[in-house]
Amino acid sequence: MKQVFIEIIMETKGQGLYNFTDKTLDWVNKQKINNGILNINVLHTSASLVIQENADPDVLYDLKNFFDKLAPMDNKLYKHTTEGKDDMPAHIKSALTNNQITLSIKDKKLKLGTWQGLYLFEHRLEKHTRILSHHLMGS
Amino acid sequence: MKQVFIEIIMETKGQGLYNFTDKTLDWVNKQKINNGILNINVLHTSASLVIQENADPDVLYDLKNFFDKLAPMDNKLYKHTTEGKDDMPAHIKSALTNNQITLSIKDKKLKLGTWQGLYLFEHRLEKHTRILSHHLMGS
Amino acid sequence: MKQVFIEIIMETKGQGLYNFTDKTLDWVNKQKINNGILNINVLHTSASLVIQENADPDVLYDLKNFFDKLAPMDNKLYKHTTEGKDDMPAHIKSALTNNQITLSIKDKKLKLGTWQGLYLFEHRLEKHTRILSHHLMGS
Repeated sequence: MKQVFIEIIMETKGQGLYNFTDKTLDWVNKQKINNGILNINVLHTSASLVIQENADPDVLYDLKNFFDKLAPMDNKLYKHTTEGKDDMPAHIKSALTNNQITLSIKDKKLKLGTWQGLYLFEHRLEKHTRILSHHLMGS
Repeated sequence: MKQVFIEIIMETKGQGLYNFTDKTLDWVNKQKINNGILNINVLHTSASLVIQENADPDVLYDLKNFFDKLAPMDNKLYKHTTEGKDDMPAHIKSALTNNQITLSIKDKKLKLGTWQGLYLFEHRLEKHTRILSHHLMGS
Repeated sequence: MKQVFIEIIMETKGQGLYNFTDKTLDWVNKQKINNGILNINVLHTSASLVIQENADPDVLYDLKNFFDKLAPMDNKLYKHTTEGKDDMPAHIKSALTNNQITLSIKDKKLKLGTWQGLYLFEHRLEKHTRILSHHLMGS
């Protein structure tokens, strides 16, 4: 059983969903591991991870829009306002989605459905540098 | 350390929560693994996974109803409407719940609470064939 | 590859977020495992787990408040009311957040961001005893 780690860095340019499937696959494919568990953690509380449809970009638009309506950027709604109107909604959206995803690798292939892509969901308005910790354990 | 895989197939008959705890347990119990990690992924973006109460069916009714009100099947709310009025709400409900669950096995027993059951949450109105990837790593 | 387990018990005093990062770290640090996967499961369906900001307590206040408004304690909204007005909202909040978190350990350090803390999110009004199953697999 081997263990390998990498931190994949994503530079985000404001709110939205950023597909990182290829970055993950590129790294996984280089490892000499046929079967194993891949654990991905975003090391932040105002961005999150989702597995979503990789076909129609309208799905990503609607997702962003839905979460904006659910947790509006309105300082009157929150006590935590010192980091900007987008910060508390970002924490809420992060709690509603995921900080981490665990995937399986079988016969050198990541177990994902045909229409599934891995997305970093940036909830802040300004650009940010986000760290995606990747940890693969297998043989 | 051993690794075993199975794809458990669920045939859904429209929206609702489908308990698959027994299917998972049946398979896990046949493996010669005393302690390990079980990773379950649903390979779709319009169905999801939740761990919920396995006692009162009213809980399942209320869950379905809550998510329907939160993400209504109303094409006027979304840009992505080509796959039917239930598709974009399905993606949203999937993002709000989980695509995957990681569980522990100790002394041949799956670590679940007394009232916890494993559910596939089907968000589409029509019947679907859903794949639940199971991956057990242990010894 | 070694596997170790512990059940960490949390006594909650009603609704709110309880930081258990130190309890997890105390236990992880005692194990002779440099690199590995830590799987944490809450064995209940009316409490859940979130990774959230550990700096400003107002964030925790706003989170609790947001989820209370999203899934109100109002028996008229639900069929499942026999366990009290807080029980069905608790199941909903549990489905919207997480039952489990999987983390990575690298070079004896838990991979968490600077501002990330591990929280038990108690959704019931009365005090409860909550079990957090911890399972560490590594070498």
